Amino acid sequence: MSGGILAGMRVIEASAFVAAPLGGMTLAQLGAEVIRIDLPGGGLDYRRWPVTADNTSLFWCGLNKAKRSVCIDFTVPEGRELAMSLIGAPGEDAGMLLTNFPPRGWLSYESLCARRADLIQLTIQGRHDGSSAVDYTVNASVGLPYVTGSNSDAEVVNHVLPAWDLITGQMAATGLLAAERHRRRTGAGQHVKLALEDVALAALGNLGFIAEAQAGQIRERVGNYLFGAFGADFACRDGARVMVVALTLKQWQALQDALDLESEVTELQQRMGLDLSHEGNRFRAREEIAGLVGARIRTRLFEELARSFDEHGVCWSRYQTISQLVASDPACSEINPLFRTIEQHGVGKILTPASPLHFAGQGRLAPLPAPRLGEHTEDVLGEVLGLGSAAIRGLRDRGVIGPALE
Amino acid sequence: MSGGILAGMRVIEASAFVAAPLGGMTLAQLGAEVIRIDLPGGGLDYRRWPVTADNTSLFWCGLNKAKRSVCIDFTVPEGRELAMSLIGAPGEDAGMLLTNFPPRGWLSYESLCARRADLIQLTIQGRHDGSSAVDYTVNASVGLPYVTGSNSDAEVVNHVLPAWDLITGQMAATGLLAAERHRRRTGAGQHVKLALEDVALAALGNLGFIAEAQAGQIRERVGNYLFGAFGADFACRDGARVMVVALTLKQWQALQDALDLESEVTELQQRMGLDLSHEGNRFRAREEIAGLVGARIRTRLFEELARSFDEHGVCWSRYQTISQLVASDPACSEINPLFRTIEQHGVGKILTPASPLHFAGQGRLAPLPAPRLGEHTEDVLGEVLGLGSAAIRGLRDRGVIGPALE
Repeated sequence: MSGGILAGMRVIEASAFVAAPLGGMTLAQLGAEVIRIDLPGGGLDYRRWPVTADNTSLFWCGLNKAKRSVCIDFTVPEGRELAMSLIGAPGEDAGMLLTNFPPRGWLSYESLCARRADLIQLTIQGRHDGSSAVDYTVNASVGLPYVTGSNSDAEVVNHVLPAWDLITGQMAATGLLAAERHRRRTGAGQHVKLALEDVALAALGNLGFIAEAQAGQIRERVGNYLFGAFGADFACRDGARVMVVALTLKQWQALQDALDLESEVTELQQRMGLDLSHEGNRFRAREEIAGLVGARIRTRLFEELARSFDEHGVCWSRYQTISQLVASDPACSEINPLFRTIEQHGVGKILTPASPLHFAGQGRLAPLPAPRLGEHTEDVLGEVLGLGSAAIRGLRDRGVIGPALE
Repeated sequence: MSGGILAGMRVIEASAFVAAPLGGMTLAQLGAEVIRIDLPGGGLDYRRWPVTADNTSLFWCGLNKAKRSVCIDFTVPEGRELAMSLIGAPGEDAGMLLTNFPPRGWLSYESLCARRADLIQLTIQGRHDGSSAVDYTVNASVGLPYVTGSNSDAEVVNHVLPAWDLITGQMAATGLLAAERHRRRTGAGQHVKLALEDVALAALGNLGFIAEAQAGQIRERVGNYLFGAFGADFACRDGARVMVVALTLKQWQALQDALDLESEVTELQQRMGLDLSHEGNRFRAREEIAGLVGARIRTRLFEELARSFDEHGVCWSRYQTISQLVASDPACSEINPLFRTIEQHGVGKILTPASPLHFAGQGRLAPLPAPRLGEHTEDVLGEVLGLGSAAIRGLRDRGVIGPALE
């Protein structure tokens, strides 16, 4: 893990599921030493799907790459003592905790500050009042399922991507770095709180959804159309599907050029009395534009269309299934420096992403696998707390730490 | 902007649309001085929908809060010179550029480094090879539209939330802070690159989608069911819709208790030969479980159900439209410390989110409005470059900077 831009930083993570583990992994993949503490046997996310045929979680492996894994039974006092010592261990680059466990009891900021007064603790919680919520419940409550899909769909359409978790995880990384910068300048640590629901509400506000609703405008459900400009999906003659976008004027011109649509568009503008060089008018006329674009695209074979779109600088892409993406898109292969195929314990060789952040001055850290559960228990207790092998053996015999790995 | 955790940091932003402006705003809402440079008349996103009746962009206002706005005509040499001087201005907390413009010509890292050798430039690009892409084209190519919605839906279902943009924006903030930490320790700046498509591909890898596909498993399209455990949507007797989740064993027990389902579940387990205490088996038996849960829920009124769910600690939420959320959910009101109602120039009073990151040691910075376009041109040229009013008047007369605001 040497050489990353965050080399030297140490973060203790007590977490499960997506947001907090992703926040920790974001730092780990930039070179920080991230030590995830779990109960012996694993946390609530240790078997989360997708899983392999023998029930190894691809999800867990994916979200805990490049971390160290320590198993401590923090349901017993001696285990809590150990965990608190790890969290409060000295070092100007240490003293950081990332958690989505309730900040109560031994995990309260007050208890932990008794170990280290300048501790930075970042707690991810469900809602701003500390009550619980998960990505799927937050998403239902913020309204997007009512505007996803077409009117012929089910009343509500859930998302598949846990977007709120992913955003929250990144924001946790930002929060820890901001707090660490402040501590370096002032010496002061603090408790940072971040609520999943607040992340979603802020996103709705930032994108204008809240102001729009306050003004009494109802966001329509527009299927696969892009809101506010022109974008839609089309099928080629051979059945291949493409997403076509004309957000900017340049993209709109490129699309007309590629499909030789200038005269039809001129006629459409006159007929509708709309200047389609304004993005909002392209949204108003989306069905009519889609009629023109679709009539052209369905006469063309995909390869031919792709060549023409690329030549003209059209903003577009092909719809692919996940299997197609993985099987045949060069961007999802080692041709893309993001990826390396690595050996993941319990899984085998898998194509694995590094951090998408490429720091040219450092080079890209190759992705590392997720640890085996408890793989680093002894090393970490020795290195961070100075425990010798006799003390560690005693802890293991008493069941305070996880068993040794075979 | 004083008092935020990033107070003192200065970032120049040359950007448009979502990811880069959001990255800058994330820092601005934590107290950094973020100076967005636009062409006089505004950038490509200045009229992005949603808009007010008089065409003020709620989107632009939402993504540029708490920033300073400077208008410079960087299509002419004198304007480029000014912009480069701003980017390269001295100060240990300055010398940071965030952009999603192509890093060519005057915006190349090499050109800018001639002004300031330790510059940190973070460039957001579409794809890893520097080619362009937008959220909507990236989303089509990574496969999620094929697994969203139900089988009766259109072949592909696009997302409404530009999730990749939002994640990329947060990651840009993380990247700038990480690079700044490194510079402070070593003196070295660098060019950081972040591709929207890589962010999406990394997310698919991190969540296990890529490994799953490599193992030959096909992710099914499962409508509103949560993947890998139990979660689904249901309608109450009065038509209110709820999302119910039983991801953990505790949530699964709470759901059975709240709906008095223990004996039906026992019978179901025996009939199917599945131990439903395993989350994966709850996914396998999702339709049968939904049958039992749905039969109970459709006999209950929403208020009654909500009370019972809360008493038993069920993980659930109500589906709300965006209008309902804004009109009646206390979480989307000033009761939630995330929000304040503020005056936004060109819009009026709107409920506005601060940063979801709450740094207890600093208190929460109240949200600030977006600037008027070019509002800070003169102040910034004076403060950062030391230009006097005669020099500024000359620039304005020559059209190098935007006109004075009325």
